[in-house]
Amino acid sequence: MLEIKLIPEEEFQRVRAADIKKYDKLGLLADMCRANALATVKRAGSGHLGSSFSSLDIVTFLYYSEMNTVELGIDHPDRDIYFSSKGHDAPGHYAVFFALGIVPAEQFINLRRLGGTHGHPDVSVPGMEANSGSLGMGISKAKGMAVAKKMNGSGGRVFVMTGDGELQEGQIWESLQTTVHQNVANIQVIVDFNKIQTDKLLDEIIDLGSLEKKFEIFGWHVERCDGHDFSQLEKVFEKFKHIEDKPKVLIADTVKGKGVSFMEGPTALRDGKGLYKWHAGAPDDDSFQAGYKELLDRIDARLNKFGFSPLTTELIEKRDKHRAKLKDTAEKVVNAFGEALVELGAKRKDIVVLDADLSADCGLRPFENAFPERFVENGIAEQDMVSMAGGLALQGLLPIVNSFGVFLASRANEQIYNNATENSKIIYVCHYAGLIPAGPGKSHQSLRDISLFGALPNCVILEPCNGAETKRALQWCVEEAEANCMMRLVISPSPRTITLPEDYDFSFGKGTVLKDGKDAVLFSYGPVMLHEALTAAEMLAAQEFSLKVVNLPWLNRIDDTWLAETIGDCQTIFSLDNHSEYGGLGDLLLNALMSSDGLRDKKLIKFAVEEHPACGTPPEALSYHKLDGKSLADRVLGEMGRG
Amino acid sequence: MLEIKLIPEEEFQRVRAADIKKYDKLGLLADMCRANALATVKRAGSGHLGSSFSSLDIVTFLYYSEMNTVELGIDHPDRDIYFSSKGHDAPGHYAVFFALGIVPAEQFINLRRLGGTHGHPDVSVPGMEANSGSLGMGISKAKGMAVAKKMNGSGGRVFVMTGDGELQEGQIWESLQTTVHQNVANIQVIVDFNKIQTDKLLDEIIDLGSLEKKFEIFGWHVERCDGHDFSQLEKVFEKFKHIEDKPKVLIADTVKGKGVSFMEGPTALRDGKGLYKWHAGAPDDDSFQAGYKELLDRIDARLNKFGFSPLTTELIEKRDKHRAKLKDTAEKVVNAFGEALVELGAKRKDIVVLDADLSADCGLRPFENAFPERFVENGIAEQDMVSMAGGLALQGLLPIVNSFGVFLASRANEQIYNNATENSKIIYVCHYAGLIPAGPGKSHQSLRDISLFGALPNCVILEPCNGAETKRALQWCVEEAEANCMMRLVISPSPRTITLPEDYDFSFGKGTVLKDGKDAVLFSYGPVMLHEALTAAEMLAAQEFSLKVVNLPWLNRIDDTWLAETIGDCQTIFSLDNHSEYGGLGDLLLNALMSSDGLRDKKLIKFAVEEHPACGTPPEALSYHKLDGKSLADRVLGEMGRG
Repeated sequence: MLEIKLIPEEEFQRVRAADIKKYDKLGLLADMCRANALATVKRAGSGHLGSSFSSLDIVTFLYYSEMNTVELGIDHPDRDIYFSSKGHDAPGHYAVFFALGIVPAEQFINLRRLGGTHGHPDVSVPGMEANSGSLGMGISKAKGMAVAKKMNGSGGRVFVMTGDGELQEGQIWESLQTTVHQNVANIQVIVDFNKIQTDKLLDEIIDLGSLEKKFEIFGWHVERCDGHDFSQLEKVFEKFKHIEDKPKVLIADTVKGKGVSFMEGPTALRDGKGLYKWHAGAPDDDSFQAGYKELLDRIDARLNKFGFSPLTTELIEKRDKHRAKLKDTAEKVVNAFGEALVELGAKRKDIVVLDADLSADCGLRPFENAFPERFVENGIAEQDMVSMAGGLALQGLLPIVNSFGVFLASRANEQIYNNATENSKIIYVCHYAGLIPAGPGKSHQSLRDISLFGALPNCVILEPCNGAETKRALQWCVEEAEANCMMRLVISPSPRTITLPEDYDFSFGKGTVLKDGKDAVLFSYGPVMLHEALTAAEMLAAQEFSLKVVNLPWLNRIDDTWLAETIGDCQTIFSLDNHSEYGGLGDLLLNALMSSDGLRDKKLIKFAVEEHPACGTPPEALSYHKLDGKSLADRVLGEMGRG
Repeated sequence: MLEIKLIPEEEFQRVRAADIKKYDKLGLLADMCRANALATVKRAGSGHLGSSFSSLDIVTFLYYSEMNTVELGIDHPDRDIYFSSKGHDAPGHYAVFFALGIVPAEQFINLRRLGGTHGHPDVSVPGMEANSGSLGMGISKAKGMAVAKKMNGSGGRVFVMTGDGELQEGQIWESLQTTVHQNVANIQVIVDFNKIQTDKLLDEIIDLGSLEKKFEIFGWHVERCDGHDFSQLEKVFEKFKHIEDKPKVLIADTVKGKGVSFMEGPTALRDGKGLYKWHAGAPDDDSFQAGYKELLDRIDARLNKFGFSPLTTELIEKRDKHRAKLKDTAEKVVNAFGEALVELGAKRKDIVVLDADLSADCGLRPFENAFPERFVENGIAEQDMVSMAGGLALQGLLPIVNSFGVFLASRANEQIYNNATENSKIIYVCHYAGLIPAGPGKSHQSLRDISLFGALPNCVILEPCNGAETKRALQWCVEEAEANCMMRLVISPSPRTITLPEDYDFSFGKGTVLKDGKDAVLFSYGPVMLHEALTAAEMLAAQEFSLKVVNLPWLNRIDDTWLAETIGDCQTIFSLDNHSEYGGLGDLLLNALMSSDGLRDKKLIKFAVEEHPACGTPPEALSYHKLDGKSLADRVLGEMGRG
């Protein structure tokens, strides 16, 4: 049995009130937060431990020792403000909030669940000052807060934490310049300099050179210290109080994964042969137990040394060890994408693959290893990556540009447009498309990417539904497409492998019927929503409603003849988008119906993700948006007057 | 009479062949290019002279003395590549192309006209290596080209020119870091350091500190010299040839407007009381004549000194002096916007206006002067501006964020999304919305902005059609809107002032009938397209076709009852978008029709800007896209079976 335990808030109060030397106490509190963060990440099945742990001593120090926020209250206008720009250190931040009684236990233990805490910071969680999780925005936002404090006549300082890899983002350098020029001195930036990015050393991804000199030449007051040494932290922030004419930055040397021996940067890199494996995701059962034990033993040993009784913990979940997981067995379209990249790369010497520090997540590592000379690791600099692809394409090469859809489609949107006006050909791959996984939250869920590419006249958008279709889709993009392509790919394991007919023909603008039916027809795409659609059809069949389910991987091109044949006699058509209602497949169908004399009298009903996406488990998020199979079945019947 | 003359290509050949010392000859050629650039800008009625002139000595030097491009040919794989990242120095660049016989005279003299040269670089013009005009992309793109040369085994160097204000863009700093890390040494960047941005000193907008030190600390080899001194330029580029382990940057000290005394930076700033007026737009008739005469006199004097006969020129256009211009008399909605900002700013102390170096163009200067403490000049750093607005809004202020739509909606798209997820309220104003003016070209025409905001669930999008509606729309955004707003504003003078009924009620989701009709109804918005729609209706009336024309300023919200009443008995509905067909008013109407039982049988036909926007005069571009009144009338009749 695996037991997941919580150190309750009262234990934090006990330690806080105890007669222990300040720095020792802070060290205890930080480790207690580490244990709780580890427990919630394990319970959630995902979360960022590496950078939660590297920054936790600093966050603990700020809230317990440096800032007035707890004393004044989290809504007080004169409060000190802290937030994390990188944002994936949220589990550690929540642990501090829980310890301080800001976030209640019920919410705290439900990390990445509906009604719990989000995978990345969200202002709906008490104490969170800003939404983050997409990189590079924090200093700009902190500047707005500091200026607002001045305009409002409010007191309080503004602290913002950045990652180190995050400094590859151009917006950081914009904000460094403007903050100085605009004389905004009330900003204290802390760089969590743990030297490791997603899974490789920062120096391997994009070396940043001397951070101290860079910040200095940009006009900032710079300090550097050990980010795990409370006495050094105290000295730096004390010094900052007396620097009133400049914004301030602390480059805090930290250790990624600090506090659990085998998660700590140097050790973990050695164990992983150069790859760091504790950035995201939950540890396996044995690692969890070993890490938790190490933390608790150290805390108790120290409590004992200081003359106090050991910690008491509360059991929050018990589960079988080594449970089978969907992700270990299910199909993942990204794996097929990775294989297809290598196959096409071997044939086509003009293919160049570009990555923005998400190589493993985007299935690029096989290509990276097979063709290192045609793989460009561009770091967390999507704009630069996309314009670089533009230059490659102008010189006759075929760039395949990768990142998560929410970043690629929006962060580099103008660069994509600029490239598109040059009539070259580039393939953009928007990974992590759609609502699922819903645990990381709004910063990562990509529900606008189709709309962000949609107005490019020379870009075909498509999303495949299984491994085979993924390979065929990429092949089409590489070998048949005349202009730009945007392929969106789901990142999570497929809840079921969508079965395509054996004679399935991947043909421009045409889809395929997955399940026949006569009472209505539903069009969708991709493994996530087709699974829900098929589930709905199965439920409806039991209620004697026959729903035809069609896979249409083409999201902005459609063959009108095929469409008319596929709709047939059905009077009611449903579209199901793994995207915002705006600009998705529903709108494509709507336009096609209107422009066809034979189809204009049909009725189309759009199902899609309305409002900003919910954070939670996949079933929770799908159910919240009424897009799970059961809800869809109910909605179909309701629309057909049978609800 | 105003005469516009061209120095023909033969004269360039004569000077090139003449026995004149190298640097003297380059100076002559550069000034001849200045004269031709001035002539084409005057003829076009617009264009960027200030930075064409500051960079022209460098561009002349590169093509005539440094690069192999002319010798090998502009399509040769081993050619040296040059392009301008800032791109508004295109008139000067074209002048060099014309001088070298790369761009023919007919195309050259038709700057900003259909079939001529574009207001910003476009690869459809011979010799142009990349599209630019939106700032900050050039080094990234050059990096792609340099890497491609290596992968392709091609020779040739890559040169790219940037502005100085352009260095405020974050992408620049991304690219500086990645270029070094990726060991791309075959890049020679030239910063046209003329120290003046749109109309103010760079040091006033956002000071950049020591450029040399910044580039050095980012790992680049840096040289600095007088960008108007050919011997210094020659030495620097010679030196660059021997630096093989680093990318190289030349900070070229230049004078904005160099070559025409009253356009030169220091003089012009003094004359303009701190504002530089020769950045964009054509000079008035007298200034043109004075500037042209100064250039020709100097060239002829030098030719005479070197023993050659004076230049011969060809007359390319003759026109009356001091012609009345639409822009001097017509309504401009941006002026009404500027007035409304000041009125609302006086009432609402929470309003903060943010600008990205387009204060005058966006009508912000009255607010800037009236409330300097609530005006944020953020320089050319849209991402930082938008996230700063996010911070201001989180602290209870109401930011009104301004830039051209093509930049704001796309460059800062993820930042806008991030802000929207925080449930704060921000007003975004996308200036220069739509197709017109069409002379600046694709980098400036904003035809995707609605689609780029469209999938934000909590953002209302609207575009007013005249001054009165603009004031009312801004007032609604400030005082009535509950969440975010995006207001798009045409920047050009209104071809006619759209008349609204005296009892016009600006009401959420509702529009107003501008002209009654019974045979069909057309919905549009904004001064540009409503003018064309009304023109079409007037033409159709003469053909006994009665077209109802409706102004609907709400672009993503619609009142269904009002819509049904307005459509009435009309069976055919037209939508006319000053935007891409994707995601505009047409799609809003389409969705509204489909979701209403009473309207589902109606037919909707969408008129919009298809393909990438054409470059030309307003009539040329409208006609090209079949969106001028005449074309619209024809298309309406055609769709109604009366074509």
